[in-house]
Amino acid sequence: MFENENNSLSYLIDQLHRLPGIGRKTAQRLAFHIIKDNIEDASELAHAILEVKSKIRYCNQCFNITESDKCNICNNPGRDASTICVVEDIVDIIAIEKSNEYQGIYHVLGGAISPLAGISPDDLHIKELLIRSQDADVKEILLAINPSTEGEATMIYLSKLLKPYNKRITRIASGVPFGAHLEFIDNGTIGRDIISRRDVE
Amino acid sequence: MFENENNSLSYLIDQLHRLPGIGRKTAQRLAFHIIKDNIEDASELAHAILEVKSKIRYCNQCFNITESDKCNICNNPGRDASTICVVEDIVDIIAIEKSNEYQGIYHVLGGAISPLAGISPDDLHIKELLIRSQDADVKEILLAINPSTEGEATMIYLSKLLKPYNKRITRIASGVPFGAHLEFIDNGTIGRDIISRRDVE
Repeated sequence: MFENENNSLSYLIDQLHRLPGIGRKTAQRLAFHIIKDNIEDASELAHAILEVKSKIRYCNQCFNITESDKCNICNNPGRDASTICVVEDIVDIIAIEKSNEYQGIYHVLGGAISPLAGISPDDLHIKELLIRSQDADVKEILLAINPSTEGEATMIYLSKLLKPYNKRITRIASGVPFGAHLEFIDNGTIGRDIISRRDVE
Repeated sequence: MFENENNSLSYLIDQLHRLPGIGRKTAQRLAFHIIKDNIEDASELAHAILEVKSKIRYCNQCFNITESDKCNICNNPGRDASTICVVEDIVDIIAIEKSNEYQGIYHVLGGAISPLAGISPDDLHIKELLIRSQDADVKEILLAINPSTEGEATMIYLSKLLKPYNKRITRIASGVPFGAHLEFIDNGTIGRDIISRRDVE
C-alpha cells in the first residue's frame, strides 16, 4: 500500500530489487535506510554508481576491469607475460590474486559455454584468447575455469582449440578444499578426487 | 588489490557497504553487477536514490513518510481518527496495514527509549504525541511498540505520561505467534505468555 502511494519509494524499491540477491523485503529495508539517511550519504551512493559506469571499462587485452586502456595487471612489467590464466569472470581474478600464488597475466572469458543458458563459444572472449595465444612469448595457458559441468565442457573445448598452438596447457587442481572434511564433501567431488589421485612424493 | 587500483570501484564498494546488512563481499558482488549492467539501468538506480531523497518527507501529523504535507493515512477521511496507533518505526505501519485489522491513524515515535543506545525520550516524537492526545476526538491510544526490553520501558513511560489525558490506553497482544510451536519459543516469551494468560471464552 505504501508503495502505491509513494511513487518515488516504489520506484526505488523496484530498482534495488533488480540487484542480484536483493529480495523485495531487503529492497524495502534498504530504501527505508536511504530515506532516513542524510542527503549527503544518499547522494554519494548515487554518484558512486554513476561514476563507476562512466570510468570503469574493460582492459583491451584481457577484459579485466580498468580505468584506463589496459588493466593494472597487463600494465605491470613485474608480471610474467608468458603465462595466461583463463578465468570465467573478473571476480575469479580477485580470488586468484588474493592467494598470492600467481604471477602471470589473465584472460577473462566472460562466462562458460552453456547451451542450456544460451551461452555459445561466440558469446565468450575466445577469439581474443586465440589471437593472444599466437604470441611466441606465451608459453603456458592455465585454465582456471570453475569445475562445474559447463566449466569442464569449456575447458575441453578450449584445450582442443589451443592444441595447435603448441603451448603448455594446464588446469588448476580440483579436489578436496584445504581444511575440509571428506565427510562433508559431495559424492561427485570425492569421485573425481579419487580418479585424479596422485602418488605421495 | 582491485579496489586500490580502481578508485571508482573501491568508492562504490565503500558506499554499498555502508548500507545495512550489506557486507563487504555482497557490496563487491553488487558493484560488479552494476559494472556489467547496462548504463540505463545503473542510471535509473542512481536517479531513484536521488529522487526518493528529494520527494519523500515526513507527515507533519504522524511522521509517516509521504510525498505531500500529510500522509495518505492521515489524509484519508475513511480512517478512524479517534484511535492513534503508536509505533516505533514506519516499517511497523507497513506490517500493521498488511494485516488489514486496523482502521485508525498512526503516530511514529522514531524508535524506543534506550539509555544504552543513547536514545532518550527527547529524541522521539513524544511531545507531538502528547499534543495530539489533547484532542477530545481521540478516544484510544494503542501502543504497538515492539515487545523488547526497550519497547516495554517505552510503553510504561508513555502510559504514565498519557494517563492524565483520560484516554483508553491499550497495547497489542504479546504471545506465541500464530502457527508457532511452543517447543521453539524462547523462555522469556513463554514466561510472559503464561503470566498474561486469559480465560477461554
